Amino acid sequence: MMMQTIAYLGPPGTFSEEAAIALATAQPDVVYLPLSSIPAVVTAIETDAATVGVLPIENMLEGSVNFTLDLLIHETNLRIAGEIVIPIRQYLVTRAGLALPQIQVLYAHPQSLGQCRRFVERCLPGVATVASLSNSAAPAEALADERPSAAISTLRAAEITGAQILARDIADNHSNVTRFIVLAQQDAAPTGHDKTSFCFGFREDRAGVLVGALQTLAEEAINMTKLESRPSKEVLGQYIFLIDIEGHRNDAHVARALDRIAARTGMFKIFGSYPRRQAQNQAGS
Amino acid sequence: MMMQTIAYLGPPGTFSEEAAIALATAQPDVVYLPLSSIPAVVTAIETDAATVGVLPIENMLEGSVNFTLDLLIHETNLRIAGEIVIPIRQYLVTRAGLALPQIQVLYAHPQSLGQCRRFVERCLPGVATVASLSNSAAPAEALADERPSAAISTLRAAEITGAQILARDIADNHSNVTRFIVLAQQDAAPTGHDKTSFCFGFREDRAGVLVGALQTLAEEAINMTKLESRPSKEVLGQYIFLIDIEGHRNDAHVARALDRIAARTGMFKIFGSYPRRQAQNQAGS
Repeated sequence: MMMQTIAYLGPPGTFSEEAAIALATAQPDVVYLPLSSIPAVVTAIETDAATVGVLPIENMLEGSVNFTLDLLIHETNLRIAGEIVIPIRQYLVTRAGLALPQIQVLYAHPQSLGQCRRFVERCLPGVATVASLSNSAAPAEALADERPSAAISTLRAAEITGAQILARDIADNHSNVTRFIVLAQQDAAPTGHDKTSFCFGFREDRAGVLVGALQTLAEEAINMTKLESRPSKEVLGQYIFLIDIEGHRNDAHVARALDRIAARTGMFKIFGSYPRRQAQNQAGS
Repeated sequence: MMMQTIAYLGPPGTFSEEAAIALATAQPDVVYLPLSSIPAVVTAIETDAATVGVLPIENMLEGSVNFTLDLLIHETNLRIAGEIVIPIRQYLVTRAGLALPQIQVLYAHPQSLGQCRRFVERCLPGVATVASLSNSAAPAEALADERPSAAISTLRAAEITGAQILARDIADNHSNVTRFIVLAQQDAAPTGHDKTSFCFGFREDRAGVLVGALQTLAEEAINMTKLESRPSKEVLGQYIFLIDIEGHRNDAHVARALDRIAARTGMFKIFGSYPRRQAQNQAGS
């Protein structure tokens, strides 16, 4: 795949930028395109303003990014061409010369604040917290505040803003990761170590119907790595199931299973086949 | 079940209060306890500060309320004793004397604003939008603003604040509903028209293992009405499955199926059995 422009959910300094940078590794000429929303990333790829884009799809603690799932189901025919797993490491940063006991104000994205609750309770008791719109905006706002302020920041945002690092790896859970998908016009060619993502729906959500689809996978000895449901958005209690399996859609047994599942279900859509990536903190499965 | 104090996620005027009021129907003496967070509702019931509580668990458009699901899985041994389905109807409200073409500022909870996008684009073009923390705070803030302001509001919040209704049912989707669960120390006795919620997890997420659990339900002719997954929060790619089925956990065939599933799976937890409620805009299943 020739890569030129990588779109991501900006601003620079977010974990999404870290995913875009990780994707660009070993690519000589890459242009980064930070955009203001997830739909903007999709539209940029659809209109060839970007060659590929990275979107967050799943966090180890928070679960699926529903916005991305709904976009895949309802809004775009772009394919998943890859995945990237990024460790979520939080840093406490401030302007040069301030020490931990002096901090009175803490800027943080609310989700990051929640992930660093133990550190904040113990090391910053009584601090006033201010909600920031992103992990990248927080350090910039802390640096602009005249009071003794700190921020919860990504390493990359600390580099960009020139903030000083007071503490590293401050999240309660040190093994947290976020998985990003790489969206493109085409999915990836088989590598022998692939994954396929697809979804299906049916009018009657009986165990017997879903079990048929899953049984097809079991009969073909296909390992399922994820099963997620999203509302059909038509009637409460009607769902679309999103499934990740091992194998490429061009593999004979995968193609056979997908054909059988498509024949049984109503709505059916393949999001793409792409090389599997392991999280850095996980053993192989 | 004797009911005295119903805890809910406040403030008054939210859809959660509408759920609490719907629960209280036919109860003579009821005290409402609006609290500031979902964990506060749980703690109030656990400590007998409240008899029961209502928590949002699923919206027809947005899907599951992950916070509530994770709380059931990881944090509490309270039981689900009932469910309530509330239509999500949005109103445009303002102070007396203002008409639609005069409105310059619109207060709205971001999720509600998203649900009313078409109305706002067509009937309030060029309006400045301000994010409010709840559907109940929005009308209060609009009334306090000196500029010609309106708010997206629940009917109940319009009543409480005395705001004038300019337009009704302004959401793009008119059949949107939210399902709430009733939490209590005990679940409900069988009525012959019940539902049971439970969850389970296992270390290896193979299709063959999940399919075994679902097959057990199919063999006992038990209808599954919902299947949802949440991260185990331990390793990316390890999930807990949450399942709703028809029938009471005291029904012989349901008890048999649950025993068989519990024997096969690692973590297993029954959230409770309770009478099924249909959404007002749905046909019977």
